[in-house]
Amino acid sequence: MKLFEPLDIKGMVLPNRIMVPAMVTRLADEQGAVNQDVIDRYVRYAKGGSGLIVVEAMAVHQSKAGQLLRINDDDKIPGLTELVRRVHDTSDSKIVPQIIHFMKVSLSGWRQTVDMLSIEDIDLIVEQFGDAVRRARQAGFDGAEIHGAHAYTLASFFSRRNTRKEDPYEGQSLEGRLHLIGRVMENIRGKVGHDFPVGIRINADEFIRDGYTVGDAKLIALRLAQLGFDYLSLSVGGKFEDAEHVPGTVFFPYTGYSGDRCMPPAWYPPAPNVHLAAEIKAFLNANGHHLPVAGAGKLDEPDVAESVLAEGKMDFVGLARGLLADPDWPNKVRKGEIDRLVKCDYCNVCKHLAGTHNKVNCFLWPKGAIQAPADQPAAGAPSWGPDKGGLSLTMQNGSAVLTWKKVPGAARYDVYRADDDGKVHVEDAVKVTRWVDGGILAGMRYRYYVRACSDTGQTSTPSNSVVIEPQMPAAVLASQSVHSAA
Amino acid sequence: MKLFEPLDIKGMVLPNRIMVPAMVTRLADEQGAVNQDVIDRYVRYAKGGSGLIVVEAMAVHQSKAGQLLRINDDDKIPGLTELVRRVHDTSDSKIVPQIIHFMKVSLSGWRQTVDMLSIEDIDLIVEQFGDAVRRARQAGFDGAEIHGAHAYTLASFFSRRNTRKEDPYEGQSLEGRLHLIGRVMENIRGKVGHDFPVGIRINADEFIRDGYTVGDAKLIALRLAQLGFDYLSLSVGGKFEDAEHVPGTVFFPYTGYSGDRCMPPAWYPPAPNVHLAAEIKAFLNANGHHLPVAGAGKLDEPDVAESVLAEGKMDFVGLARGLLADPDWPNKVRKGEIDRLVKCDYCNVCKHLAGTHNKVNCFLWPKGAIQAPADQPAAGAPSWGPDKGGLSLTMQNGSAVLTWKKVPGAARYDVYRADDDGKVHVEDAVKVTRWVDGGILAGMRYRYYVRACSDTGQTSTPSNSVVIEPQMPAAVLASQSVHSAA
Repeated sequence: MKLFEPLDIKGMVLPNRIMVPAMVTRLADEQGAVNQDVIDRYVRYAKGGSGLIVVEAMAVHQSKAGQLLRINDDDKIPGLTELVRRVHDTSDSKIVPQIIHFMKVSLSGWRQTVDMLSIEDIDLIVEQFGDAVRRARQAGFDGAEIHGAHAYTLASFFSRRNTRKEDPYEGQSLEGRLHLIGRVMENIRGKVGHDFPVGIRINADEFIRDGYTVGDAKLIALRLAQLGFDYLSLSVGGKFEDAEHVPGTVFFPYTGYSGDRCMPPAWYPPAPNVHLAAEIKAFLNANGHHLPVAGAGKLDEPDVAESVLAEGKMDFVGLARGLLADPDWPNKVRKGEIDRLVKCDYCNVCKHLAGTHNKVNCFLWPKGAIQAPADQPAAGAPSWGPDKGGLSLTMQNGSAVLTWKKVPGAARYDVYRADDDGKVHVEDAVKVTRWVDGGILAGMRYRYYVRACSDTGQTSTPSNSVVIEPQMPAAVLASQSVHSAA
Repeated sequence: MKLFEPLDIKGMVLPNRIMVPAMVTRLADEQGAVNQDVIDRYVRYAKGGSGLIVVEAMAVHQSKAGQLLRINDDDKIPGLTELVRRVHDTSDSKIVPQIIHFMKVSLSGWRQTVDMLSIEDIDLIVEQFGDAVRRARQAGFDGAEIHGAHAYTLASFFSRRNTRKEDPYEGQSLEGRLHLIGRVMENIRGKVGHDFPVGIRINADEFIRDGYTVGDAKLIALRLAQLGFDYLSLSVGGKFEDAEHVPGTVFFPYTGYSGDRCMPPAWYPPAPNVHLAAEIKAFLNANGHHLPVAGAGKLDEPDVAESVLAEGKMDFVGLARGLLADPDWPNKVRKGEIDRLVKCDYCNVCKHLAGTHNKVNCFLWPKGAIQAPADQPAAGAPSWGPDKGGLSLTMQNGSAVLTWKKVPGAARYDVYRADDDGKVHVEDAVKVTRWVDGGILAGMRYRYYVRACSDTGQTSTPSNSVVIEPQMPAAVLASQSVHSAA
């Protein structure tokens, strides 16, 4: 499989094409030092076989942001060194820090914007990025990733909503919007040299009113390639401009429409952003640049991830929530153990925890766990018994209501559905023995089964299947009778 | 060209694949009767050769909405009959009314939502749609189009944001969201029979938080096919949920992000929504339905429109702002007179006029005109004289500043740009002799020229060309010197 071919990023050789993109964990304290929980989180990904692990983001400064790793001072280097050592001792996964600068937000909803930064503020940011990457190299990281996506400082300069005027960083020209990143990269290279892999993550589309689209993103990507960035990781959305703010709470830039697009919820189709990455990669290649390009967004179906690579739309794939749910995704897929995957159901509990400054875990993990359970052999999984779960289905107001029996040892149940096309998808993961599907349509045929899952990721065989072809409503029958009579 | 092949929609044979989608004109009065201005607007499209003309929307009821055509009473039939007759007398263009029901909005920002409608209200809506289509048939229209897109009643039932509960129209299931359209179509067929072409326009993606995506749109489209709709016209966005409301003004559902997506502004790439139409059409075809599918959104480059059809992504194309700017687009393209097109620059002045309840015209028309000027021969166009316009370019803070000389008889100037790939696009249309381009990037090569245009659409030859390869910023040069040394 293309997924398991190595990828050489300026000497940082990923053992495969699977990346853990930066995900806030809220496991560090407000000082932002590495602790055992942080180490356990990232070692777990290494154990599962991901090719590239991007850590958190970690901040170049000490500005208030709740529990977030920091790389703002040399006193952070020992902790980061230990984190890197533990990951390297575990597997041949590569590990890089995502390095972020963000502006101030207040509980009242006020937020700092790029036009409020003085030239001295900007000069400081430039130095802070360089120093942070220097510390990353000192700590033994395999490279570094600059955070130029979502709602944060660099992305706010890239944005079409950049409101600065009449200075080299002004928002009226693309060159102005890109001036800061040029200075940042110069500073970084001055401090770590040109042989240290430095990637960057940006938005392929801001998905906000008056924001930039893939049209600008192609040109931004070209500039980043010109500046010598070694890989490009693409995300979308996640902006403050359309975020909902409840006064007195933290302003979280993933609560609006652009937040939906950034972390697509359950009802979004698979891989909704792939066409954007493909367009940007094709543009870079056409302009003579070949830095590896990754994208993200509901790529956790193994055949989807594989085809995205095989079709040349990306060079490596980011699976955030998919790897949070099951850090063993790479090893299981490599061994063909697709049935043993713990499949993310995109409930976005993890997003909610990050936004409310709680330790980020996964709804599919054992209750109260702050780390994914160890991989367990399939033996010892919950068992349905002779009636295979007794799954039954009734229709209620156009929805399919599924019920099944409780099984000893089951911590949750995964509901699978196959539509007309025969492909099976996880539709939901629930802790009760009832599930309602409001997304079906008469004229299609749906097959369901349920699997019982233990706290530790052991999964039963599928229950009995039930099939429904919902009854056509009267209006359709009326139309069809005319046409069959004709 | 595929664009000029006829298309048979249940006996309504379009002479070509070019559609004028419904565009509010604000030419009628608050009573909504056809008047001379309305007739002139649509006869102009017929003269220009569009295959299908979709009129306004016109409302099934008299509810307050500013200047909007109405089809709510039999007393509207004579006016509508005259409109149809005048169009049919002009060309073989087909003409259908877009038929709309909308809910109430107030100047305070309050708006009615689907959960506020009683069963009696809904029953009335069902009858109103049927009666309106019956009136359309009586008036001689070639067919009718039901408005199921954007912010209006039917779309609000289709939406994932449908908040009705516990009745057949409830938002918790797709069948509930689709119950009303089934009843509407039954009522229509009961009143006009099955041989009258009835199409529908829906959103391919709502582009709002918690809204539906192409995943639901495919199923909605399948239901519409099952119900016997004869064509499917796809739009996106245009929702109240993310609209900006200024108290005391009309609440206009094209002012948020979903409004950007619905009427993509100048900086959006061409054809941003084509992939959605292609996915829906492929799904319908795979399920055995072959009703013609159209889409819209920046399709007015002739080669783009042609390739969308040639690649089977749509069966016909909607050009709204493109045909408003130049109703002669079809005839000019058919004759190969691409250079004579008045090209929309997507300034969205038309959107602003519709939103503020002013008569909708085009910025590119003669000053004060409420109709597009008659097509004029190229002879008599403004002329640059011997210096060919004296176009010059200087760089200022990363922007290209173009200046040229004023020409007698020029009402405006169209600025063209060719990027590296050699393809020329209109970048802007301006009434002054200066234009600033902030969207260029060092490392690319840009060629510009300007054409002077008369009030009546006569266009000069191109001015002299200027070429710029913007200077690489220091940060890029620093990076490149390392790599060329290595």
